[in-house]
Amino acid sequence: MALLNYGNPIRFEFGAVKHLPEALAKLGIVRPLIATDAGLRAAGLVERIVDTLDLPEPVCIYDATPANPTEDAVTEALALYRSAGCDGVVCLGGGSPMDLGKAVALLALSGGPLDQYDPLKGGNKRVKEVAPLIAIPTTAGTGSEASMGFLISMNDGRKLTFVNPQFLPKMSLCDPELTLGLSPLTTAATGMDAITHCIEAILAPSDNPPADGIGLDGLWRGWRHLRRAVEDGSDRQARWEMMMASTEGALAFVKGLGAVHSMSHAAGRLKSLRLHHGTLNAVILPAVLRFNERACARPYVRIRQAMGLPEGADLAREIERMNAAIGLPKGLAAMGLSADLIDDMLPHAVADLSTRTNARPIGAEDYAMLFREAM
Amino acid sequence: MALLNYGNPIRFEFGAVKHLPEALAKLGIVRPLIATDAGLRAAGLVERIVDTLDLPEPVCIYDATPANPTEDAVTEALALYRSAGCDGVVCLGGGSPMDLGKAVALLALSGGPLDQYDPLKGGNKRVKEVAPLIAIPTTAGTGSEASMGFLISMNDGRKLTFVNPQFLPKMSLCDPELTLGLSPLTTAATGMDAITHCIEAILAPSDNPPADGIGLDGLWRGWRHLRRAVEDGSDRQARWEMMMASTEGALAFVKGLGAVHSMSHAAGRLKSLRLHHGTLNAVILPAVLRFNERACARPYVRIRQAMGLPEGADLAREIERMNAAIGLPKGLAAMGLSADLIDDMLPHAVADLSTRTNARPIGAEDYAMLFREAM
Repeated sequence: MALLNYGNPIRFEFGAVKHLPEALAKLGIVRPLIATDAGLRAAGLVERIVDTLDLPEPVCIYDATPANPTEDAVTEALALYRSAGCDGVVCLGGGSPMDLGKAVALLALSGGPLDQYDPLKGGNKRVKEVAPLIAIPTTAGTGSEASMGFLISMNDGRKLTFVNPQFLPKMSLCDPELTLGLSPLTTAATGMDAITHCIEAILAPSDNPPADGIGLDGLWRGWRHLRRAVEDGSDRQARWEMMMASTEGALAFVKGLGAVHSMSHAAGRLKSLRLHHGTLNAVILPAVLRFNERACARPYVRIRQAMGLPEGADLAREIERMNAAIGLPKGLAAMGLSADLIDDMLPHAVADLSTRTNARPIGAEDYAMLFREAM
Repeated sequence: MALLNYGNPIRFEFGAVKHLPEALAKLGIVRPLIATDAGLRAAGLVERIVDTLDLPEPVCIYDATPANPTEDAVTEALALYRSAGCDGVVCLGGGSPMDLGKAVALLALSGGPLDQYDPLKGGNKRVKEVAPLIAIPTTAGTGSEASMGFLISMNDGRKLTFVNPQFLPKMSLCDPELTLGLSPLTTAATGMDAITHCIEAILAPSDNPPADGIGLDGLWRGWRHLRRAVEDGSDRQARWEMMMASTEGALAFVKGLGAVHSMSHAAGRLKSLRLHHGTLNAVILPAVLRFNERACARPYVRIRQAMGLPEGADLAREIERMNAAIGLPKGLAAMGLSADLIDDMLPHAVADLSTRTNARPIGAEDYAMLFREAM
């Protein structure tokens, strides 16, 4: 059992979810809103967990979280939170319910509209209080249980990143058991999300050696166990290691992320396509690794070492090989994204928070080239 | 500039010490006790820093901290703290002023005697409040600025380790500038302390992968820069990297330490000898690495990689080579410790907190053998 304490307390073990009643009691939550999605509800996971709670009233569940959660969904969940008199949030799911739940916890106590909290426009000064929030990840990729960020697709078409220490869950329960039933494709896509977090965090130019160390450890674990977890979803050790790589990815990206995420966010906001964030990261990563290489000689040496690759190995090529081996699409075109959308995505990629921490300065022309390469 | 936030806020940069007035104001300290030692006072460092403070009264300085600080010295410093009406502590120095200052901050608000806080005897329940404390390391080894522990040589001959999250400094200022004037010998001995922290933390069997990653990063930095810092004390990059390795060592040893520290503590409590903690660690480390090897196949692979050594390299031999290259003694005998003291040290090593987290179960007979080997 691992008790991690880097910013927020994380109980990490098989069966950790059984500590939810204790966590609720500790935070004084008697009427939680469970933020989750329809898939987890249908799979019976939500009920299984809710049944373990000994709460006075029927538990309030919001299960309509869409992939890449929208401002509209946040508004809807917030209305439910308020009408039911909730006093805290339990996020149960992958990145989408986590993001949605964090937005609800913020708006519940600091008030709307959401876009006033955009950190690029001084929004952090406006964050007052945030409702207590417990995170229970059901995928191994987002790392949101250990991060102070969340993203929402706004009604005006932007995908905004919100970052504040108060957005860290007050407590997280990481239970690899919950990932045993994930499909190979979801395992692959979310796993590559975790690996991209580790890599982009290591490459981010800010000075934070402990975060570098955590990112390298996460990459070391993730790279060795992703294929195993995809090929045999019941491999408990592989599931544990992938969930740890995911948590470590988020602990590492306090340094910032980079161009892969700017591009993923710009593509992920296209509501008609509903593209999976982890899959986007996986297929965009090789192009950005080629672009960044000249600025990253030293970290690339360490990244190769963490991945167990020979000196001078072509990192982009290795990622492409992994993507193919675990069944991910070859590029953005195969995901249904056509080249005529590039012009629409460019300004969003340029304006994205992660552009500021890419390893190499990057502008609109570079992004255009990278989108074409990732097609 | 690095702003680290793993447990406590650490401002890490050349010139960080200039932020002391701001740190005092932030913590509401108007009458600090400066815990330091006679060497730093004589070198003019204490006055240089005190002169930057704009405080209403003459600053209260305790500069009689002995190496391996004693309970008596703590009592004396506490009396000064109280008589001067202090409201906080600034630790300025290596590990000894840090340990002493932490003990004073605890006793000032939670009351004595000190040994009631022994964590092996349930002492943590008795910790009430701790006075606000700012740590400013002047060596790169102890890492006390980032740790929740401190050690005191008690009047009854034991050397006790106290560990509690409240013993983390409220704020730390890591300024590699302060280490530019360290002698080659102090640089070597404290540097090997940092390296031992990283290695023993990585080997400690508790599950904390982020701490493993931080320890490996600290080892990677420390091993590459120690010789440079010893050979040219004015090498600013080497000084920065060694101080970072030291901070990372302490962040890593939340996992626990091991037999090297149990033995060092047992020897360090011998008041007549006043043995340097880092030097003890350096000369004891090879014997313990040989003893632990059979329990540590996998972490040894990663340690070798972090140190840039070939597969299967003899770690113990590499440490011995480094010790020789940086001018440290060959063994305990060369430090003035005679074999007839082993029987006296054994029970202290066995009872030491770090014995519980050694990579391989270890008892009195093992310790006797290891002390002989380290002679």
